[in-house]
Amino acid sequence: MPTIEYSKAVTVVDRILAQAGVPEKHAVLQRDLLLDAEMRGIASHGLLRLPRIVERIANGVADPMTQGHHDWRAPGFLHVDGQRGLGPVVAQAALDALLDRAATQGVAIASIANSNHIGMLGFYADRVAETGRCLIAFSTSEALVHPWGGRQAMIGTNPIAIGLPTGGGTFMMDTATSIVSMGEVHDHADRGAPIPLGWAFDSQGNPTTDAAAARDGAIAPFGNAKGYALGLAFELLVTSLAGAAIGRDVKGTLDSTHVASKADLFIIIDQQLSPVAGFLDLLRAEAPADGFDQVRIPGERGRDLRQRAMTAGIAIAGGTWNRLCDLAGEPASTS
Amino acid sequence: MPTIEYSKAVTVVDRILAQAGVPEKHAVLQRDLLLDAEMRGIASHGLLRLPRIVERIANGVADPMTQGHHDWRAPGFLHVDGQRGLGPVVAQAALDALLDRAATQGVAIASIANSNHIGMLGFYADRVAETGRCLIAFSTSEALVHPWGGRQAMIGTNPIAIGLPTGGGTFMMDTATSIVSMGEVHDHADRGAPIPLGWAFDSQGNPTTDAAAARDGAIAPFGNAKGYALGLAFELLVTSLAGAAIGRDVKGTLDSTHVASKADLFIIIDQQLSPVAGFLDLLRAEAPADGFDQVRIPGERGRDLRQRAMTAGIAIAGGTWNRLCDLAGEPASTS
Repeated sequence: MPTIEYSKAVTVVDRILAQAGVPEKHAVLQRDLLLDAEMRGIASHGLLRLPRIVERIANGVADPMTQGHHDWRAPGFLHVDGQRGLGPVVAQAALDALLDRAATQGVAIASIANSNHIGMLGFYADRVAETGRCLIAFSTSEALVHPWGGRQAMIGTNPIAIGLPTGGGTFMMDTATSIVSMGEVHDHADRGAPIPLGWAFDSQGNPTTDAAAARDGAIAPFGNAKGYALGLAFELLVTSLAGAAIGRDVKGTLDSTHVASKADLFIIIDQQLSPVAGFLDLLRAEAPADGFDQVRIPGERGRDLRQRAMTAGIAIAGGTWNRLCDLAGEPASTS
Repeated sequence: MPTIEYSKAVTVVDRILAQAGVPEKHAVLQRDLLLDAEMRGIASHGLLRLPRIVERIANGVADPMTQGHHDWRAPGFLHVDGQRGLGPVVAQAALDALLDRAATQGVAIASIANSNHIGMLGFYADRVAETGRCLIAFSTSEALVHPWGGRQAMIGTNPIAIGLPTGGGTFMMDTATSIVSMGEVHDHADRGAPIPLGWAFDSQGNPTTDAAAARDGAIAPFGNAKGYALGLAFELLVTSLAGAAIGRDVKGTLDSTHVASKADLFIIIDQQLSPVAGFLDLLRAEAPADGFDQVRIPGERGRDLRQRAMTAGIAIAGGTWNRLCDLAGEPASTS
């Protein structure tokens, strides 16, 4: 994989977004989101998404101009019609409104419908935590996950992220409720590598280790029945509050032609917090189990990777980088 | 196991609580909570907890009279000092206040410290859903779970429950973030049965199938690193908002002598919801995977069991029932 300087990646991404008609203020949000995921090692939510975003703008299913329409249905409850806006633009406008409101209300919540893919939820969780507030964030997705005990994909990968200040830095965790991402399955298929048994079913609903067959099948929920229950509960909660599509009716984050019909939910809590940084230190100091070199705090590996990438450069898949350089009209140099 | 008529169980439990000095209005809440769990098949959160509750009252670490002190720190944020009150009494008073507040605010949230064990969170999730609102509930517990990659118990079993109306009945899910409850481990130990590899470590932090050894060790988080991240995030969020104990400092839900130092968090959302009952019907109609007879909706098996127990009687472990009859000064008849 080529290693690309951070500033070079910024230049290329900004050029592509400018060419697509994205105003600079909105482009910064979309670029920071994609680069943040890429640098944290979550390539599935990184730069490979950019060509599709550009196609979606060209096809009229993503509007780079809007921040969404805000409707305060109650003093603590904001509903956002995303008006087909770019995911991080609509999301950040909602968060800004919630941060403002939570300062007086203690808690404020936003349901978001009709917005494009908001990307890695941890990006927002970390940002909100840096302001001294807590964020609980949910999002739905296309049906890629089978219910526990079922054969077919019926439920989204439905991630949750939680961010909070600890009194000594921020804590952030972000996880899908699927055992693995469909991006990971695609990556195995592209490399001709098998997937572990238990990750996925084929299109007939039978267990498979063939990544190519799994692409047309269904991913397992993480943690069996418990992860299924969580993922389903998140989908019901987010969808019913936002008035959005559910299950197989969700479209538009993995293609270039459908209006995005998933939903998002943010809960921001603004309160005095007792510090928990010392407890995280205790965890870090724990003796590791066999096969582990240390007890890790969720989110910290990604943060370290991001920090390193800012100075040492970003490892980007060659195909992705070449495609971006093509789009930007630049030679695919790596410096 | 003896099968006890519902009305008989009510009589015995009510007598025990009355003898312990619990006012009738509070006794009804404590009794309904314990019987609800027992009838749903969650014996670990059922009647076996009652003798300990009585001991805690006698020892002064549970106060049967108080509903807790309410401090609205912001229009949407309630902090509750439980004043050592009975868990369900303090919890229900907090929920009543939140339901009232959420009707105007859209969302209201309560952190609860210094309250006794609030029991099965799903009990509250179901009740709130029946009123047409959504509940997200969290609770912390004694450190029983090892961090992923660690050897020792450092984190609570930290359950989450979500309840919401679907437009055709309520949905309720309730799960710990541990792979299994410590009650289940104790049950295996009592029966001399081994536990599956992967459930727990012994006191040295080594994997074990010996249930007796696991009692002094640590349970695994469910779903490996993902369940660890969730359980940790819940503990950080709930603890820092409530200003309560964390990790190994949490005491008082499994013993009769310590003040309960865990915390709880309730989020109630009061909004117009789009119906999701039809999607649950689609899930129920899905073809089951090999080894399953149907795709289940979380919470429904427990609800069916409860319904049956209301009319056909409650199967209660003989030892538990005999102990309750002793406490109530009744012969242990089963009708």
